[in-house]
Formats: sequence, C-alpha cells, structure tokens
Amino acid sequence: MRKPSKRSAPKKSADSPSFHRTTVGIHAVMEALRVHPTWAVELWLKEGFESHPQAKELLALAKKTSVRIQNKTQKQLDSLGSGHQGVALHLRQSPQLLEKALKQQKVVCLALDQVTDPHNLGAILRSAWLFQAAAIYTPQDRSVSLTPTVCKVAQGGAEHVPVAAVSPLDQELKRLKEEGFWVFGLSHKADKTLFDLQLPEKVVWVLGAEGTGIRKPVERVCDELVSIPQASPAASFNVSVAAGLALAESYRQLFFSKASK
Amino acid sequence: MRKPSKRSAPKKSADSPSFHRTTVGIHAVMEALRVHPTWAVELWLKEGFESHPQAKELLALAKKTSVRIQNKTQKQLDSLGSGHQGVALHLRQSPQLLEKALKQQKVVCLALDQVTDPHNLGAILRSAWLFQAAAIYTPQDRSVSLTPTVCKVAQGGAEHVPVAAVSPLDQELKRLKEEGFWVFGLSHKADKTLFDLQLPEKVVWVLGAEGTGIRKPVERVCDELVSIPQASPAASFNVSVAAGLALAESYRQLFFSKASK
Repeated sequence: MRKPSKRSAPKKSADSPSFHRTTVGIHAVMEALRVHPTWAVELWLKEGFESHPQAKELLALAKKTSVRIQNKTQKQLDSLGSGHQGVALHLRQSPQLLEKALKQQKVVCLALDQVTDPHNLGAILRSAWLFQAAAIYTPQDRSVSLTPTVCKVAQGGAEHVPVAAVSPLDQELKRLKEEGFWVFGLSHKADKTLFDLQLPEKVVWVLGAEGTGIRKPVERVCDELVSIPQASPAASFNVSVAAGLALAESYRQLFFSKASK
Repeated sequence: MRKPSKRSAPKKSADSPSFHRTTVGIHAVMEALRVHPTWAVELWLKEGFESHPQAKELLALAKKTSVRIQNKTQKQLDSLGSGHQGVALHLRQSPQLLEKALKQQKVVCLALDQVTDPHNLGAILRSAWLFQAAAIYTPQDRSVSLTPTVCKVAQGGAEHVPVAAVSPLDQELKRLKEEGFWVFGLSHKADKTLFDLQLPEKVVWVLGAEGTGIRKPVERVCDELVSIPQASPAASFNVSVAAGLALAESYRQLFFSKASK
C-alpha cells in the first residue's frame, strides 16, 4: 500500500466511533454498503425514511453489516450536505491506491490539477469508475477532498476509484513515467487532438482547472499535449465532460472489445 | 421561423424595459454581448465591479451596444442566481430554431426527455455548442428553462444553440424522422453501443433523466437504442457526460477532419 490519502483526519461525531468520511444519497450509500460492508460505521436515517421506495433494499444491505443505525432529523442530515435523500453513511475508510494496481498490463489514471468544484470531482469519479480508471491523483494542497457531496455525485464511484492526494503532483507524474506511463495533458494549445491518438497501454490523463488550465510545472512533465476538437475556440468544455471524453477514448482503445459486431 | 420556445413570457424589472431572459457570469455575459449585441437590454454590475480583471474587456463590449448599465448591490444580483461574479445581462431574446438549420446536409440535434437539473442543461448546452449541434428539444411541460444558472453554466452556449420546447416530444421526433433524421435513444437496455455506430448525416440523440431514463412513448419513436459501454453495470453516467460522449461521436464522424495526420 502506498501513500495513503491525507485528505482528512478521522472525525468523531458526538456519540459515535471515529470515522474517515461520510457519503450521502441513496445510490451512493447503497453502493458503499454493497462494496465495503466492513467499512460502515454509522448509518443516519431521517425520521420516516422507511416509506422511501428503496428503504427496504437499503436496510437489507445494512443488516448484513455491523453498522449502527441512528434516526436523525432533517436538520442533522442537512448539516452534512445537500441532496442526502434522508440517508447518510459514515465510513471508516476510503479506497486506497495499491501499487499492484499500477503494475497491470493496461492501466489508465487521471491527474486533476486544481479541480476544486465538488460536483465536477463527483462526476469525474463516476466516469472514472465506469471507464475503468485505476486512480485519480490530485495535488495535496489545492483540490477538493472526498466530501459527502463528492461521494453523492459520484453515485458509488468513490467506493471504487482511489483518490490519491500527492505533493507535488509533477514529481508523482515523473515517477509514473518511470513506471512506463505516458502522460497526456489536455490543453487548448495542442495541435494534436484526442481523435488522432493511438494510445499506449499505460496512460495518465492530466486535466487542469477550467479557465486557468494545467499549471506550468505540471504541463512541463507531460509527454504530449492534446486538445479536444471543438467547433468554436471561444470556450472550453466543462472539466467533467472533458475527463469523460478522455476516459472514453482510453476505454475504447484499451478495454472495449466489439461484442456486437 | 418555427415554434418559438414558450419557456417564459417576457418579464419586467421595476424600472426597465421588458426582457426575455437573464444571463449571469463574466464569460456568459461577454459571449452574449459579442454574439447578440442588439438583444442586450440592461447590464447589471455590482458596485466596485470595475476592479474585476475582465471588467475593461466587458465594458468595451457593452459600449458597442445600446445596453443600459445599472449599478446593483450584491443582494440584487444574488436574487438572480448564484455564481454571477458581479454581472448580469437582461436580454430581449433567445436563439430561435430556424427551419433552414435542419435542412443542412449534416445536422445533429439533441432531445432531452425530462432533464431537470440546471447544471446539467447548462453543461449540455456548452457541449452542444462546441460539438456543433443545431438544436436541443425539450418537452414543454417537464424540463428546465433558460434560467440565469443554465446560461451561466453554458458559458456562452445558450447564445448559440436554440432550445425548443415542444409538445409532445414524441410527435416532434416523428416529424424529424420524416425530414430524414435518424433518432438514437441512449439506453442501458441496448446491446449496440455508441462505439459500434456508423452514423448517418442527420442525427437526433435522445437522452432521458438519470434514474428513470427515456419515457416509453418517446423510446418507441427511436429508430435505434444505443448504450454507452461501461465497465460496471451498477451505475450510469451523469447525463451531461453522456450527452458529451454522444455529441463527440457525431462530431468525430460528421464534422471532424483529421488536420494533423
């Protein structure tokens, strides 16, 4: 196991054992209970949650774990984050990046340089899971952590894709290059486009913040800059859409086999 | 000109002429002033806006129009929507869908069945612009309108891609089929994937709400259902990411020419 995320120290709620992170929302909570039953510490349910159409399914999953169930008010749940749908789960752990995951024959990683919007990180985690990315790297000091909102928007993706906070990011990318990865930076400035690429088997996609893009020291480490083709130069894609497009391309070239044709 | 959007009747602010819609945020407001100078009715600026790094550029654009400039408080701007960055623009019109736009040789449209989240519609408008879509259709009764938040997130996309509210959506799709369009519905259920498609020159992508998907009457009109390949069946993509992937595929096949190779 390498470089565990240092995003946040375990927290304590008033009357509960320590936990590492919290996820909210039906879909995200159910995926966490399904995938990591031993990580579940405390399940918060809004009074009257039993009448929710998916309550039975969620409670059946919870029953298979040793999670402690607590009834809470709307206000208590609201304090964790919006969109909780009356349910929150405190977990003792987050997915960790194992060195062996990087040793596979085909590996795709993402590096997000200063992506700070939790909705974007959540949507990216979701795409990363569904397009088989092994990890997301973020700089330790300038990125969002796995907040309840991020986990909610990720719809279960936060249970599958480790987010590794590293410092500095450019050094980590250099290390990945030594391990055989080819580092592609997504940039407006590039002539070569995403649609022209013949991808190697080990890929890191680097995306910067909307507006400012990838920082210079990180850009310098990239083996190649690529742009997303677009009809107008007057704007750029939302970063979670851009990440989805890059991940789709690596999934198509490395993992997808044409079953239907 | 056909079926103008009936999203909202023109509104009146206390001391201003009537306007049709409002956009907020530096980038979206600047694009609106650039593309539709004659539509600008009233520009709201937060007190002290002049010190914003892009204030000069924005004011130079405004000067070329007959827009009325008003200083407003943070609270007045907040009442329009979040993320305004101290600037809002009231406009007398929205892009309208012209029949001739559908008569081109290659045309891509989107139909969004019950997509209600303004951040998603905004991000989709942005991708639709950058991937050269001619129009977005939504059902008249169950979708989001061009709110300030939608326009802000679209980052200028709302100035380029007409959003046509139609009723009922399935009838409109039938009409498009008669005009030579091939209607693809994005669906989990499909065996054929987005990566297997050889696209015709006139395409409509239909996307449903996350969770519920495309409604039955709309699904029945689709010529073909296609899925987005994914590593796990336990979740689905964010709808704005899914729209981005579909639009990227049509842009790649219909409009993109390999310049660099």
